[in-house]
Amino acid sequence: MKLRELAELLDGEIRGDGEIEITGAAGILEAREEDITFLSGRKLVKELKKSPAAAVLVKDFLDEIQKPQVKTRNPHFAFAKLLGHFYGKSIQYKGVSKKAFISEEAEIGGNATIYDLVYISDKVKIGSGAVIFPGVFIGEECCIGEDCTIYPNVTIMEKTVIGNRVIIHPNAVIGSDGFGYVFEEGRHNKIPQVGNVRIEDDVEIGAGVAIDRATTGSTVIGKGTKIDNLVQIGHNVQVGSNVILVAQVGIAGSSRIGDGVILGGQVGIADHVVIEAGTMIAAKSGVFGEVKSGVYAGIPILPHRDWLKATALFAKLPELKKRIEELEKRMREEK
Amino acid sequence: MKLRELAELLDGEIRGDGEIEITGAAGILEAREEDITFLSGRKLVKELKKSPAAAVLVKDFLDEIQKPQVKTRNPHFAFAKLLGHFYGKSIQYKGVSKKAFISEEAEIGGNATIYDLVYISDKVKIGSGAVIFPGVFIGEECCIGEDCTIYPNVTIMEKTVIGNRVIIHPNAVIGSDGFGYVFEEGRHNKIPQVGNVRIEDDVEIGAGVAIDRATTGSTVIGKGTKIDNLVQIGHNVQVGSNVILVAQVGIAGSSRIGDGVILGGQVGIADHVVIEAGTMIAAKSGVFGEVKSGVYAGIPILPHRDWLKATALFAKLPELKKRIEELEKRMREEK
Amino acid sequence: MKLRELAELLDGEIRGDGEIEITGAAGILEAREEDITFLSGRKLVKELKKSPAAAVLVKDFLDEIQKPQVKTRNPHFAFAKLLGHFYGKSIQYKGVSKKAFISEEAEIGGNATIYDLVYISDKVKIGSGAVIFPGVFIGEECCIGEDCTIYPNVTIMEKTVIGNRVIIHPNAVIGSDGFGYVFEEGRHNKIPQVGNVRIEDDVEIGAGVAIDRATTGSTVIGKGTKIDNLVQIGHNVQVGSNVILVAQVGIAGSSRIGDGVILGGQVGIADHVVIEAGTMIAAKSGVFGEVKSGVYAGIPILPHRDWLKATALFAKLPELKKRIEELEKRMREEK
Repeated sequence: MKLRELAELLDGEIRGDGEIEITGAAGILEAREEDITFLSGRKLVKELKKSPAAAVLVKDFLDEIQKPQVKTRNPHFAFAKLLGHFYGKSIQYKGVSKKAFISEEAEIGGNATIYDLVYISDKVKIGSGAVIFPGVFIGEECCIGEDCTIYPNVTIMEKTVIGNRVIIHPNAVIGSDGFGYVFEEGRHNKIPQVGNVRIEDDVEIGAGVAIDRATTGSTVIGKGTKIDNLVQIGHNVQVGSNVILVAQVGIAGSSRIGDGVILGGQVGIADHVVIEAGTMIAAKSGVFGEVKSGVYAGIPILPHRDWLKATALFAKLPELKKRIEELEKRMREEK
Repeated sequence: MKLRELAELLDGEIRGDGEIEITGAAGILEAREEDITFLSGRKLVKELKKSPAAAVLVKDFLDEIQKPQVKTRNPHFAFAKLLGHFYGKSIQYKGVSKKAFISEEAEIGGNATIYDLVYISDKVKIGSGAVIFPGVFIGEECCIGEDCTIYPNVTIMEKTVIGNRVIIHPNAVIGSDGFGYVFEEGRHNKIPQVGNVRIEDDVEIGAGVAIDRATTGSTVIGKGTKIDNLVQIGHNVQVGSNVILVAQVGIAGSSRIGDGVILGGQVGIADHVVIEAGTMIAAKSGVFGEVKSGVYAGIPILPHRDWLKATALFAKLPELKKRIEELEKRMREEK
Repeated sequence: MKLRELAELLDGEIRGDGEIEITGAAGILEAREEDITFLSGRKLVKELKKSPAAAVLVKDFLDEIQKPQVKTRNPHFAFAKLLGHFYGKSIQYKGVSKKAFISEEAEIGGNATIYDLVYISDKVKIGSGAVIFPGVFIGEECCIGEDCTIYPNVTIMEKTVIGNRVIIHPNAVIGSDGFGYVFEEGRHNKIPQVGNVRIEDDVEIGAGVAIDRATTGSTVIGKGTKIDNLVQIGHNVQVGSNVILVAQVGIAGSSRIGDGVILGGQVGIADHVVIEAGTMIAAKSGVFGEVKSGVYAGIPILPHRDWLKATALFAKLPELKKRIEELEKRMREEK
């Protein structure tokens, strides 16, 4: 594909030779001679100069770069489009394997692909265009929307409802029992978990994630939310739309996460927490109570700026202590 | 079911109309018009007033509530009983699938249910009434007790011993090798992990949990202990009875957790730690050494009250520093 | 086996009766009467005296121990050898099951063992001597080296390249999509993840681990690296050789971990971090930016000695505050 054609595809503007041939797209560190790459920030200009890439996607033309450039409003987004263009793995329609176990009471939509070694229980509905990989278990009365991709060894327990275009990565578990017990008569008595999980359209769920069913009602993951690997979501949690949960986040029972919230890696959210829309919480933080919209960090969380200041002084505690001792000494001397 | 009958079932006392019909039980936020709900604490009275629930389980009759009330010593426990009564999913006996792989040298108890796509190795014993879901692997010489439920895609490695009424949620791994190496000759040499895992009666193990086998001897999970999702338990760990391990806890090799201990979410326990019975450790804490019975928080842990005080001052470090500077300034001026 | 023969095997020196019979090896707490055990440090001498073990591996002969002793340069390493000698589970060759799904376009090496319920996709290559347990999925164009062991319910996605003698524990996921999105047009747009994962020789990967494929290029795990359970490794991460990643570590996208680095349990590494070879980071730490070789702890990390000092003072913040208040009071009084 000529650079000129590629620029048209992206509705971008060229500086340099539009007739060069581009055969792929790759990150700055991985790009080879016929690849186009992208510049996500000025601090990578140095890396870019060393890169053999044939051309680069930029937000504004850069004089210090000799390579042909394509200017687009969002080079990262343009890059994502090009990866799809060059390598887009379109999962092929393979039909329904005769070796899969599919209940006679299940309904399988047209153009669905169901591999060997899949188990589909009674009264399950699978939407058209869905792809169910080997080792997947789908419990009774589950409903899976159109064009979903369920990767290998995923377990989906009974009554789970999943929207359209949802992607679930390998070995994730949806709809396991919530962690609920009452201590009585000298032991922890299990509270039956009779609710379900509801996952809205365009959600993506990472490898090894666990999402528990509600005690009663539903645990909900809102439209367009993206969940990284090994995240834990407790019973009755309500996650809003377009939320980002980075790897190893844990959210305890009944918490509510507002639309567009971003939780950094390994963040822990206690039970019954309410987080307002648009809030960002830094990696490894611990959250209790109600959280107004803002940016936070720490265990427990502080406003991010306050956390930065306090953390800087934490390292200086030995110095602060010395200064206190010095003051005490002088005070004694002055007496 | 009439409210009057329900009260009898729970051995509770009614205030209000005992003749109303109750068709289900649900939490305050999820209850519908013919449901009974429960009040776990006074701060939910406001939510209860807004709830369409027909009746409520209480510890003491409340004058400000108009709904019919059923008084029981432990409303949460009564609620758990009712969930079982109304929705109790009794997993049905389905027999042993001819499509499961079952070694000829395995012994399967009466009334056991074994689904398709299960793999049961040589010399395995499965107790009567056990249910083994699709995708489960059970290694050689494992012994699974009576009435156990092993959910889909669980892996149980060789020689694991499991008591009665144990529940293992999807994709958990029991009996993987402990993480043991000796550095020698320029590389990490694997220490063979030749012990096993022993799980006592009435234990419940969450989705995606990993419990490693002992190097020699056994990793033990005591009677009645409940383990939430994505918990890691290292080789030779001894967990007591009725312990609660909240999601994403990690316990390193050879640590001993006393009876009735509660570890909050994402707590990390170093290796060779000993925690006395009844200890509670707050979420996200990090634990080293020996821990006397008590309540703790922090990295490393402090007694919980001390941690609260220190944490409150952490946020005020910038202010404390200013006060030190102010003192230093005055001291200079006074000279 | 006589103790004398055992000492010869280990090239060790005996003190005491070399004619006693040794039938097994076990840790100090688990050893029985005909076992040999080992002493890893002086603080276990007390435990050793109580142990019924018949003999002990030591670094230097100990006068206070009455048992026969075998002196070797590294008793722990010698112990590992003996465990292999007495119990070494040699996974048996079982051939290729006719009930496994194996693509006609796959190449299976000689002496490979492939169990029932395995799914091997098109153009996969499996090296000789490899063992693939039930429930394993291997995606298109994967290459698995010689003498690898892939435990049950592992998922390996397309184009993953795995070296020789690699061990992957149950339910791990290799090659899931990286967590990459661009926010544009009001939603998170998926960045296609078209790279792969490359795992070098002698790597061991724990149960439930997730290793994401690269966006472009490869996520790499270097030779001899050992990864504990439930670790998360993001897209384009480069892990060096002989690295130790303890359980529940999380490493975000594009970070580089130098050779021989040790990350303690639950450590979190932000994206684009660079950690120099030989660095040790204590459990539960959080790492940003560039890290020079050394020993660190904390969130964010400090040099370990500084962290110890600051942490000791954190607990004393209430006392420090009182000392400041006392100074202020005196200052006021003096005026």
